[in-house]
Amino acid sequence: MATIDIQTPILDLNEKLAAQNRKRFDERGVFVLDLMASPGAGKTSTILATIAALRDDYNIAVIEGDIASSVDAEKIKAHGIPAVQINTGGACHLEANMIQKAIEQLDLDDLDLIILENVGNLVCPTEFYLGEHAKVMILSIPEGHDKPYKYPNIFQISEAVILNKYDTLPVFDFDEEEFEEVVTKLNPKAPIFKIAATKGEGVQEWAQWLRGRIDEVKRASACD
Amino acid sequence: MATIDIQTPILDLNEKLAAQNRKRFDERGVFVLDLMASPGAGKTSTILATIAALRDDYNIAVIEGDIASSVDAEKIKAHGIPAVQINTGGACHLEANMIQKAIEQLDLDDLDLIILENVGNLVCPTEFYLGEHAKVMILSIPEGHDKPYKYPNIFQISEAVILNKYDTLPVFDFDEEEFEEVVTKLNPKAPIFKIAATKGEGVQEWAQWLRGRIDEVKRASACD
Repeated sequence: MATIDIQTPILDLNEKLAAQNRKRFDERGVFVLDLMASPGAGKTSTILATIAALRDDYNIAVIEGDIASSVDAEKIKAHGIPAVQINTGGACHLEANMIQKAIEQLDLDDLDLIILENVGNLVCPTEFYLGEHAKVMILSIPEGHDKPYKYPNIFQISEAVILNKYDTLPVFDFDEEEFEEVVTKLNPKAPIFKIAATKGEGVQEWAQWLRGRIDEVKRASACD
Repeated sequence: MATIDIQTPILDLNEKLAAQNRKRFDERGVFVLDLMASPGAGKTSTILATIAALRDDYNIAVIEGDIASSVDAEKIKAHGIPAVQINTGGACHLEANMIQKAIEQLDLDDLDLIILENVGNLVCPTEFYLGEHAKVMILSIPEGHDKPYKYPNIFQISEAVILNKYDTLPVFDFDEEEFEEVVTKLNPKAPIFKIAATKGEGVQEWAQWLRGRIDEVKRASACD
């Protein structure tokens, strides 16, 4: 079979568009978070808990990525937060061009934080830079402590790991010690935040970390 | 941007190799199941429960697909069942050529059932025919009842839907009625099997369905 290297030009174009996105975010002092996880790990619930913790101090918007439907964007809007739904069709991840279109619907001058909820997938979203300031992942207790062995890349590129549904620890066979050991080997700098998003438990520490990152970008933008 | 349609030839080549796989399976009367689910939905546990239910009557082998590691193949082998681990590197799904190589390590003449455990992903595995007789998916209760809205394709192409971790229903906000209604709209013929794989609960009905499919392929092969 003759092989054509199509991945490199696609990723190159994506990088170029992502850099354009990033420039726009930096100029306006908007911190952008790319949130990745398996389907059903609690991305939307974590976003809602994060909004509850930060909305008094920051203006927040959400961009929702899904293959189909707009259920997540509707949930966010119901809380009075601007949300844009991207339907990727068949695509298993967000790409920079989708974000470029979606932010046309947001007033960047009026925002401090945009959370991108990526498509539920532990593999494909890791390869695409969207212009975000940080990628963060969620693993949920029911998924099991062995996931870092099977999907090492997402644990390596995430600046923080959120361990969600922590309240269900007694129900599942999840070896916390082994999980933390493997994650720390893969990514020694990443903090692990243990939360129960739907109950709002443990969210403050995670929100505090995020505040630090939002404020950095704001300060850098104010200096320019 | 000039566009090159690379997806069509890749899928065409995959279809060709998958058809070759299928021919080999049919000639030897081996039923092949492609099992798909999110990371941590319980694919390996469901396979172990299925093996326990069927091993007295059928010879079974498992092909494990993961980005990295061999933890799943080791779990299967520990139960005395032949298992081949495929590491896809970065790839988010199994492809027919990987299966072609993996079955070289199995004695097809001696098998009745091969279970392919696909990479944990609700999107990418749906696009690749591997030569299997049926694709079946697992959704687990903690993932939430809204998944068919967001990932409709996998629910449409699966011949059966396994609802795993059914014992954790009281712990999660999972609307069973809504789930069944949406799945039935997407795929009116697919039975939904409610199981708790790690406890062996509800497995008999699923195993009975699978027996029917294995025996069909066996009978067809015997007639040739």
